[in-house]
Amino acid sequence: MDESELPRQWYNIVADMKNKPLPPLNPATKEPLTAEDLAHIFAAECAKQELDQTHAWIDIPEEVLERYKSYRSTPLVRAYALEEALGTPAHIYFKNESVNPLGSHKINSALPQCYYCKQEGTTNVTTETGAGQWGAALSYAAKAFGLECAVYQVKISMQQKPYRSSIMRTFGATVEGSPSMSTRAGKDIITRDPMHPGSLGTAISEAVELATTTPNCKYTLGSVLNHVALHQTVIGLEAEKQMEKAGEYPDTVIACFGGGSNFGGIAFPFMRHTLLEGKKTEFIAAEPSSCPKLTKGKFEYDFGDAAGYTPLLPMYTLGHDFKPANIHAGGLRYHGAGMIVSQLLKDGYMRGEDIPQTESFQAGLLFARTEGIIPAPESCHAIAATIREANKCKESGEAKVILFNLSGHGLIDMTAYDSFLNGDLTDPEFKG
Amino acid sequence: MDESELPRQWYNIVADMKNKPLPPLNPATKEPLTAEDLAHIFAAECAKQELDQTHAWIDIPEEVLERYKSYRSTPLVRAYALEEALGTPAHIYFKNESVNPLGSHKINSALPQCYYCKQEGTTNVTTETGAGQWGAALSYAAKAFGLECAVYQVKISMQQKPYRSSIMRTFGATVEGSPSMSTRAGKDIITRDPMHPGSLGTAISEAVELATTTPNCKYTLGSVLNHVALHQTVIGLEAEKQMEKAGEYPDTVIACFGGGSNFGGIAFPFMRHTLLEGKKTEFIAAEPSSCPKLTKGKFEYDFGDAAGYTPLLPMYTLGHDFKPANIHAGGLRYHGAGMIVSQLLKDGYMRGEDIPQTESFQAGLLFARTEGIIPAPESCHAIAATIREANKCKESGEAKVILFNLSGHGLIDMTAYDSFLNGDLTDPEFKG
Repeated sequence: MDESELPRQWYNIVADMKNKPLPPLNPATKEPLTAEDLAHIFAAECAKQELDQTHAWIDIPEEVLERYKSYRSTPLVRAYALEEALGTPAHIYFKNESVNPLGSHKINSALPQCYYCKQEGTTNVTTETGAGQWGAALSYAAKAFGLECAVYQVKISMQQKPYRSSIMRTFGATVEGSPSMSTRAGKDIITRDPMHPGSLGTAISEAVELATTTPNCKYTLGSVLNHVALHQTVIGLEAEKQMEKAGEYPDTVIACFGGGSNFGGIAFPFMRHTLLEGKKTEFIAAEPSSCPKLTKGKFEYDFGDAAGYTPLLPMYTLGHDFKPANIHAGGLRYHGAGMIVSQLLKDGYMRGEDIPQTESFQAGLLFARTEGIIPAPESCHAIAATIREANKCKESGEAKVILFNLSGHGLIDMTAYDSFLNGDLTDPEFKG
Repeated sequence: MDESELPRQWYNIVADMKNKPLPPLNPATKEPLTAEDLAHIFAAECAKQELDQTHAWIDIPEEVLERYKSYRSTPLVRAYALEEALGTPAHIYFKNESVNPLGSHKINSALPQCYYCKQEGTTNVTTETGAGQWGAALSYAAKAFGLECAVYQVKISMQQKPYRSSIMRTFGATVEGSPSMSTRAGKDIITRDPMHPGSLGTAISEAVELATTTPNCKYTLGSVLNHVALHQTVIGLEAEKQMEKAGEYPDTVIACFGGGSNFGGIAFPFMRHTLLEGKKTEFIAAEPSSCPKLTKGKFEYDFGDAAGYTPLLPMYTLGHDFKPANIHAGGLRYHGAGMIVSQLLKDGYMRGEDIPQTESFQAGLLFARTEGIIPAPESCHAIAATIREANKCKESGEAKVILFNLSGHGLIDMTAYDSFLNGDLTDPEFKG
């Protein structure tokens, strides 16, 4: 894909949705939040994007485009070897978002978020991270735009993948395991439950608290929110052009699902044609069986974090105090789903699919041995869902075109593969 | 760089050298080895390439070209942010060989070696590996061509970077720490020195022993030998075309140095113009101060391995029983230099430069924080040498064009960065 063909705008699917997502609410007043409210913790431009329901296309700033060019476009690959191993008539494509120095799609939103913060005179950014893909991306982007960066990483993930905090430190960031003793929220959680393994919910509470109690510091989020999914649509927009060059259009689009940004990133540009032209495409969000908010969550207003610092968000949720099992796919250990995705799920445009941990690694291993890339544990869920669909095609004889997003590589997650190869991995049950 | 511009031949510098490298000798008879002799342990085609002194250009097989296309060409990047941080007038370029799923240049030779083995009816391959970049690349290439693979990894490196053996296992390879109890050579070494940390020399002995005592099994090597450097010239051939597009030609070409394949890969295509047209270019091989065969080794016939199983090779060497210090750049812990490079060094076409461990990581950290890529500890040596040259330019005001090879990323080497960030890294002295 030629540099001149790179998308110059992100796609804001909300503008094209008949049923708009419900508004986020101020938990005290229950009033819909304004961009001004959100701008207390987020960059003003991100706050504006978060609530934009009218503009379908948002310009990517030149400075961000320049950074995108250093690693984009990312390859769209036909997985011939995987198809052959499965003996499926399906055409399997994947968009390879692992090919940047940070190793995942997270960089696509870290760059604009840090850019906007810098533009607005912010000096410090903070965030939560699970497996650490988002924290690593933000650490890099903060350094690139000259910002200081503090990251709260989920404690269990930090222990499972120690290299990721080293990566963040190498880029100059400060890293704390969450729940930590450095915030009121963290201390409250530890006091109640000293062995709490942490979750994205606890880490968000701590980062939000740091942002609201530190001068000139903004909070950034790696998923869940609308503006994050917006930035990630660069993935699907590229994929659409690349599929066109390959002379194909996907019957099925698959991504793993934590908060929804990687899913939205690949799916929304294709879903646009479903919304506007009634194109028939199946959209599958692959989530862990042990954290199944899409299939077993309730659609209701809930907090985005464990401590209840965030606005009330309308979403499919397992409850903000849900404590996810210690699976290796740290990026998927989140109780809720983004507001846009929740509305789309409610309206039947997509479905969730639950993947047990061992099935995800079995799929990841086959992918590594056929396609030569070791996928992140999160991405393994998308691969497992893809294999399920490809096997259905084998039975039915249909040559469906399946596109999935390889959100990241798993080179920092090798202890998980070790456990799997040693037969030590389990399938924790969902305890709702 | 367009796919149609990818090199279709490797460059064999020996054909253009006035003083050819001395021949490898049979240690018993002291007679020069024939390709038939070498074909006992190597693929016949590799053995032929090893002794080829007449053909300057060797065709890359179509099947290998197809595999190359999945990740080549690799980017040539102008390191603007590094230049700015150094305040140097030099133009710094790097060839980024880290952008493939294996993370280093090693894949460039693993693919043809496995291809030739497969073509010749071999079912099993074995090898040595230090940090594990070569072992990982071979494990992947073996799986790609349907071969079984057994890897002897240097014990200390295995402990320092446990993820790399997990990567090899994920690709289906068997991995043993060397010295191991699974070979006669390993047992001999352990008996004499139970705490021996291993070296590339001990691991080569074990792999050669396995290859010579196992039916239908060939030995493969990741550096040192002529045919390995030959395969790596795809790096420099691409870089030459890419530099041309940028309107530049390097005044200085730099690579880190273990056995010489990454150095030869980037340097030989440019050195061709020095040999044939008298072009003035400086070639610098960056080696660890603690394993300085180029600056403090002797030019003499020596074994390529610790146990003395290999042919006698004419090379700069610290002695085949040299026990390198436990530095993190495992790929540079080798006592000797390749035959071609040794002759070129003797004839004054290049020079070695010794880099202390902490200086290498200081350079790697600056590179990560400016260019966004965490370099392998081996590659940090090339970066340190580049920074030395760039700083000279700052003093002299010269706007030299410096090209270095970023041979791999350091995502699997984060314990090394951790030690450095914690102030725990030392600079082991050379004990000759």
